[in-house]
Amino acid sequence: MTFVEKLLSASRTNRSLVCVGLDPDPALMPVKDVFEFNKAIIDATADLVCVYKPNIAFYEAMGIDGLMALEKTVKYIPKGIPIICDAKRGDIGNTSKAYARALFETMDFDAATVNPYLGHDSLDSFLQYGDKGVIILCKTSNPGSADFQELEVKLPGTERSMKLYEMVAEKALEWNTRGNVGLVVGATFPSELERVREICPDLFILIPGIGAQAGDLEGAVKSGVDAQGEKAIISSSRQILYASKGKDYASAARKAALKLRDDINSIRN
Amino acid sequence: MTFVEKLLSASRTNRSLVCVGLDPDPALMPVKDVFEFNKAIIDATADLVCVYKPNIAFYEAMGIDGLMALEKTVKYIPKGIPIICDAKRGDIGNTSKAYARALFETMDFDAATVNPYLGHDSLDSFLQYGDKGVIILCKTSNPGSADFQELEVKLPGTERSMKLYEMVAEKALEWNTRGNVGLVVGATFPSELERVREICPDLFILIPGIGAQAGDLEGAVKSGVDAQGEKAIISSSRQILYASKGKDYASAARKAALKLRDDINSIRN
Repeated sequence: MTFVEKLLSASRTNRSLVCVGLDPDPALMPVKDVFEFNKAIIDATADLVCVYKPNIAFYEAMGIDGLMALEKTVKYIPKGIPIICDAKRGDIGNTSKAYARALFETMDFDAATVNPYLGHDSLDSFLQYGDKGVIILCKTSNPGSADFQELEVKLPGTERSMKLYEMVAEKALEWNTRGNVGLVVGATFPSELERVREICPDLFILIPGIGAQAGDLEGAVKSGVDAQGEKAIISSSRQILYASKGKDYASAARKAALKLRDDINSIRN
Repeated sequence: MTFVEKLLSASRTNRSLVCVGLDPDPALMPVKDVFEFNKAIIDATADLVCVYKPNIAFYEAMGIDGLMALEKTVKYIPKGIPIICDAKRGDIGNTSKAYARALFETMDFDAATVNPYLGHDSLDSFLQYGDKGVIILCKTSNPGSADFQELEVKLPGTERSMKLYEMVAEKALEWNTRGNVGLVVGATFPSELERVREICPDLFILIPGIGAQAGDLEGAVKSGVDAQGEKAIISSSRQILYASKGKDYASAARKAALKLRDDINSIRN
């Protein structure tokens, strides 16, 4: 099964567009052991999500121990639920190949987020894994995304101009020859999300920024889904993981994930 | 000592602008053990370089064992020689903080390469480590760098327009409030390198792309150095690491590094 097939299957089985970001932060976690924490969150939410998304930065910050906990977590997640590694990688030539190998072979993630700044050849090593999802940063959820992503760019050899993030969306379409490309667009920018969905009616879109970043859930769902009401991945991390800092953190996480799933479903129905 | 001070000190002591990229590739390495390989390369070149630059992708591709070999390598490098982690990281908010912590605290690198696509707030967690170098991708050495980096962009609120990579260089200047910012510009684009040096006369520039990528050494040195003939870091990986695939790989690496150092010095004198 390809990433997209796995994603749609989990999404339909669990009637969910929810992605839980597995981002363990020692300053916020109610228990010390990362794997124990992730395991409890997964046990409490596995029937409510369409995908899990560990951001590898949090594990790298804990050194080798953190990465070992990530490995264990990836193995623990039930087989039917795909896993996106939020890694935002991007490099050139044989280095790009090494990153793709690291994430798709050494670690066996189903998909990864990548950064487009280095251009097509920097993503090609990822794209060649046709069964893996390659999710290109387009319009990110942070305020600083305006610095470059919103600049007006002229298209070479034409009179057309558009925002840089729109051009990334156009290129993503062009690079989607294996059907494995997706985009990242922040829920904090609903009109830009609408524009990206217009440019790419069929790509899946990973949408972070609701919850702690205060993005607009209704706008995110309405603008993010495709014509079938699918292919939007609404990601939440802190709001679910740290719904309670007490011993009841897992059941609080379940409650928060359930509410998010149902809120989304009532918007898309 | 800050990264820049350490860099200039090593560069002056060893009369060298050479950076050896420690990129162990199992398909090319003449020995199996990564740390043994790196140690032999370091022993053979430590008096000839101004900096070492492991690209973390190669270690990640080998999993936990690779990252343990990287840790050992970082500890083994003589204290006077700074170490750049070629990581091309970039993420937002507390995730960016986790990456900066991973590279500057958990791993204790002296500098890291970062990707500007997510904007200023995505780099700020790195920039706040004033003693660490933050090296922003500007014009990368690969052909695909044309896809976005060479696009003509309009500057908001003005009539000015420039290439995206030029705007990144201008922003780098603006963000250099702690004196710790550098840029990456490929030797494969000597006129773009000249332009970046014009915009940023005092920043240090990491210049990959000579050797295996066939960038122009003379152009790279002449366009890359500052007015004092310094602050250019000429990086070579494969040409030095794999100068021989036989048992004499370390002495062959020394010979290649020595030649590169002397070639550079005869160009800058």
